[in-house]
Amino acid sequence: MIDFQTNPDRYRHWKLSCAGRVATLALDVDENGGINPGYELKLNSYDLGVDIELYDATQRLRFEHPEVASVIITSAKERVFCAGANIRMLGQSDHGLKVNFCKFTNETRNGIEDASACSGQRYLTAINGACAGGGYELALATDYLIMADDGATSVSLPEVPLLGVLPGTGGLTRLVDKRRVRRDHADFFCTTEEGVRGKRAVEWRLVDEVVPRSQLAEATRRKAIAFAASSSRPADAKGVALRPLTRRIEGDRVEYGTVTVVIDRDRGMANITITSPDESAPSTANALAAVGDSFWPLRFARELDDAILYLRFNEPEIGSWVFRTCGDGRLAETYDRLLLENQEHWLTREITLYLKRVLKRLEVSARSIFALIEPGSCFTGILLELALAADRTYMLSGQRAGEESPSAKIRLTGMNFGPLPMCNGLTRLATRFLGEEARVERLRSRIGEELDAATALELGLIGFAPDDIDWEDEVRIALEERAAFSPDALTAMEASLRFAGPETIETKIFARLSAWQNWIFQRPNAVGAEGALKRYGSGQRASFDRRRV
Amino acid sequence: MIDFQTNPDRYRHWKLSCAGRVATLALDVDENGGINPGYELKLNSYDLGVDIELYDATQRLRFEHPEVASVIITSAKERVFCAGANIRMLGQSDHGLKVNFCKFTNETRNGIEDASACSGQRYLTAINGACAGGGYELALATDYLIMADDGATSVSLPEVPLLGVLPGTGGLTRLVDKRRVRRDHADFFCTTEEGVRGKRAVEWRLVDEVVPRSQLAEATRRKAIAFAASSSRPADAKGVALRPLTRRIEGDRVEYGTVTVVIDRDRGMANITITSPDESAPSTANALAAVGDSFWPLRFARELDDAILYLRFNEPEIGSWVFRTCGDGRLAETYDRLLLENQEHWLTREITLYLKRVLKRLEVSARSIFALIEPGSCFTGILLELALAADRTYMLSGQRAGEESPSAKIRLTGMNFGPLPMCNGLTRLATRFLGEEARVERLRSRIGEELDAATALELGLIGFAPDDIDWEDEVRIALEERAAFSPDALTAMEASLRFAGPETIETKIFARLSAWQNWIFQRPNAVGAEGALKRYGSGQRASFDRRRV
Repeated sequence: MIDFQTNPDRYRHWKLSCAGRVATLALDVDENGGINPGYELKLNSYDLGVDIELYDATQRLRFEHPEVASVIITSAKERVFCAGANIRMLGQSDHGLKVNFCKFTNETRNGIEDASACSGQRYLTAINGACAGGGYELALATDYLIMADDGATSVSLPEVPLLGVLPGTGGLTRLVDKRRVRRDHADFFCTTEEGVRGKRAVEWRLVDEVVPRSQLAEATRRKAIAFAASSSRPADAKGVALRPLTRRIEGDRVEYGTVTVVIDRDRGMANITITSPDESAPSTANALAAVGDSFWPLRFARELDDAILYLRFNEPEIGSWVFRTCGDGRLAETYDRLLLENQEHWLTREITLYLKRVLKRLEVSARSIFALIEPGSCFTGILLELALAADRTYMLSGQRAGEESPSAKIRLTGMNFGPLPMCNGLTRLATRFLGEEARVERLRSRIGEELDAATALELGLIGFAPDDIDWEDEVRIALEERAAFSPDALTAMEASLRFAGPETIETKIFARLSAWQNWIFQRPNAVGAEGALKRYGSGQRASFDRRRV
Repeated sequence: MIDFQTNPDRYRHWKLSCAGRVATLALDVDENGGINPGYELKLNSYDLGVDIELYDATQRLRFEHPEVASVIITSAKERVFCAGANIRMLGQSDHGLKVNFCKFTNETRNGIEDASACSGQRYLTAINGACAGGGYELALATDYLIMADDGATSVSLPEVPLLGVLPGTGGLTRLVDKRRVRRDHADFFCTTEEGVRGKRAVEWRLVDEVVPRSQLAEATRRKAIAFAASSSRPADAKGVALRPLTRRIEGDRVEYGTVTVVIDRDRGMANITITSPDESAPSTANALAAVGDSFWPLRFARELDDAILYLRFNEPEIGSWVFRTCGDGRLAETYDRLLLENQEHWLTREITLYLKRVLKRLEVSARSIFALIEPGSCFTGILLELALAADRTYMLSGQRAGEESPSAKIRLTGMNFGPLPMCNGLTRLATRFLGEEARVERLRSRIGEELDAATALELGLIGFAPDDIDWEDEVRIALEERAAFSPDALTAMEASLRFAGPETIETKIFARLSAWQNWIFQRPNAVGAEGALKRYGSGQRASFDRRRV
């Protein structure tokens, strides 16, 4: 089992240190600390285990260290910054693991950019040695790259010349779209194994500054302090400790506090039930801070985050995720209101941003997403986003025969109208009703209303509303059909349909670059017995089928 | 050899008829007319040969029929509109042919949309029978879809449920981005083999109108006439006949009037030389019309178009296309000026739009593009776009030792600042200098100037400017290195670097959907011995590896 839970005491590869407004994350990979056997993590190269720690560190920096306004990423090794993803690890991984590993790594990179853009926590990279492949892609996710001007230090993306694959964690997109490196420079750079150093690296915008090696630490620190000066993060707030999740895995059941996953192997699906809060939200943001990581939206975000990653990596054959909710919509609404009314408070902002990232993680998962809205459910605000994120939503119309519980209702809150945008930068409602801004505006007037199935259908908020007579069959057939289709075709189709509208660096990375990467990772020229990835380090050159496709 | 030259007299699959302002393109596939042996084109299904005719027809409608303002696409068969791409043909095609076939088909679809958007020639589809897969994707490329409301007629995209592949010619993107079909409706539609008919098809925006079968022809004709009424195309102009190209293929040489291709098999490259005009442009648009298809820009566009398609399909192992030009920049400039000064004239507009499409075709080709700017060359305006489209541009700085000819110069014209946008909707200059609008504006003041290598380098218009001492080695090494890399990695890298900036339906189709399609076309679940594409029609069900990737 691959587990994403960790904490700084257990890190084997990163050293996290905080000093006032500036934190430092130093990469110091334990060569013998690979998450799987069969390779050594030489030259500060990384595998999924290294990335799990990085993700954990970025989360703790947000929640446990409100005072940290700048984060310096650097290397604790002498002459190498980072050699990128470990090649032997990639060579021995199956297709699914390669793709999933790249996706998770991409998500952490995007999370770093989100911290810079939305959370007042800026990231910088001090490049103190060779910075290659995924190492440079990590640097590209930060705001400011300072590089030592010495013979040993360069930046490079050697994947194409060396391995016959793409830089798989956003490098190509970030070069031309984020840093606006000119396309011909990018072309030269990405086909030059040894990379670029010194003045040319600055001229081509590959890094922001080069300084003599002896001045690197100080120059980076100065820049970090300058960034911190304009940060909106509080210098004196108390952080929220992210304690270990309560999680019980028993057979096909994974149980958290707010999230329960039950796997139905015969039907290739995971039933994911979210339990909404059973009491009202605290009345102020300060009261919330006292509750810490027990605060329902934070707990829910952490648990769903972990469940998604658990299912992605440990249950690849479970192709459909079926979401249900239960609870009291009026209570759930109080949490949305608290978050909305305190968007200036660092902690409510962090929690909202985290909810946004978890919902994004859901949508870039290669799984079919269903939402089933039944009597007793609680698709309100934040939880309604699950239904809006789903590929298919079914809502039971009317009551169940012989049952007394009232018919299912859904409820819009302000959280559906802005704070939780998708990767494309639009809300799920705006994406759903692309080009119909007035329709989205009209929905605003329904905030807080209990909407039954007929109304939800008419408003376009759900896809199908069978009544009790049809419900069982209609839902069962839809799920069974889904399970019978080609998993690959579904993955590609869903990725193509989910993100209508504008593109962002994130959608380009997930929808375009990932697709090319997936393709490359299937091609004999990379992964065949004579392919570049397989032959790397063997002393033999790869042998290519030269036909262009 | 696959040849893209044809004309209506030779069509086997389409019937083109013009009546005043309205033309009709009726699909009537000859079952036994497949471009390759091994399959029958049943149910109006198509292969590359059918698409070659369609492309030819759309080109002739633009140039030979200026009076045609509306084009109705329909079927000449009784009960079927079009079953899409022929499955047996796909099943027996290798990966490269499948991908290239889809790309060419996509380009024709985009060309149809370009006619609607820019040329005043609107397309409509009269759906008179089952309209499935690529058949519906063709319809999606048109402006207005009218469907017969009868039991035999529906629209569908059955690729996912039936074949385990994606609708490969833009269908998914056009559903959610062009027609703004809601994502949950699109999901249902794309997983429902039998498709959608009647009122629901209109409600879900899959078609624009349904009418009783008996009224289909008349309703379509009325709509076509209404579209024509607002067209900017002249009712009384004389068309320009597109006569057969002069093309001589001898060994590794393909020679046209303005374009010469010489293949260097050892180095995996095609040397493509463009000869610019040897006399000034006619002085008016009407004089141009008299010159017809001999007019240099039109001739060049047709010849380069054919050369690109020839190389794509017939020379897959030739991975680098190296462009050179020769001629007199001052003469070339007169053509750009004529086009720019007569943008209201239907013919100059058509020629400009065609140049735009050919340059787009170049950029979505899976080949490395080099431009070599040497003494005697003529990279002016339109031809400078070739250098701006290239992945790498080398310009020889200064004179060649022992030669008298003056050093190489390039020249900007107004054609570089608007009329020839890339797939992303921006000019090549705006893409090159993304976010630096002022820099592009400053370049305008250099229009018409002869720019030598040092100046061009300083302005950022070229990548490298070696002098005569270094030129030979630097260019040779760059080309040899390129030829040694993994062809797949280059294809994916180039597709990722070429289109920075905003996305459009076209970039989404080529960069996202195509990449997913490429991936699918490699997956055992589709193309393996037990995959859906291989098993289709065998009576055996596909057997899937259920792991999600």
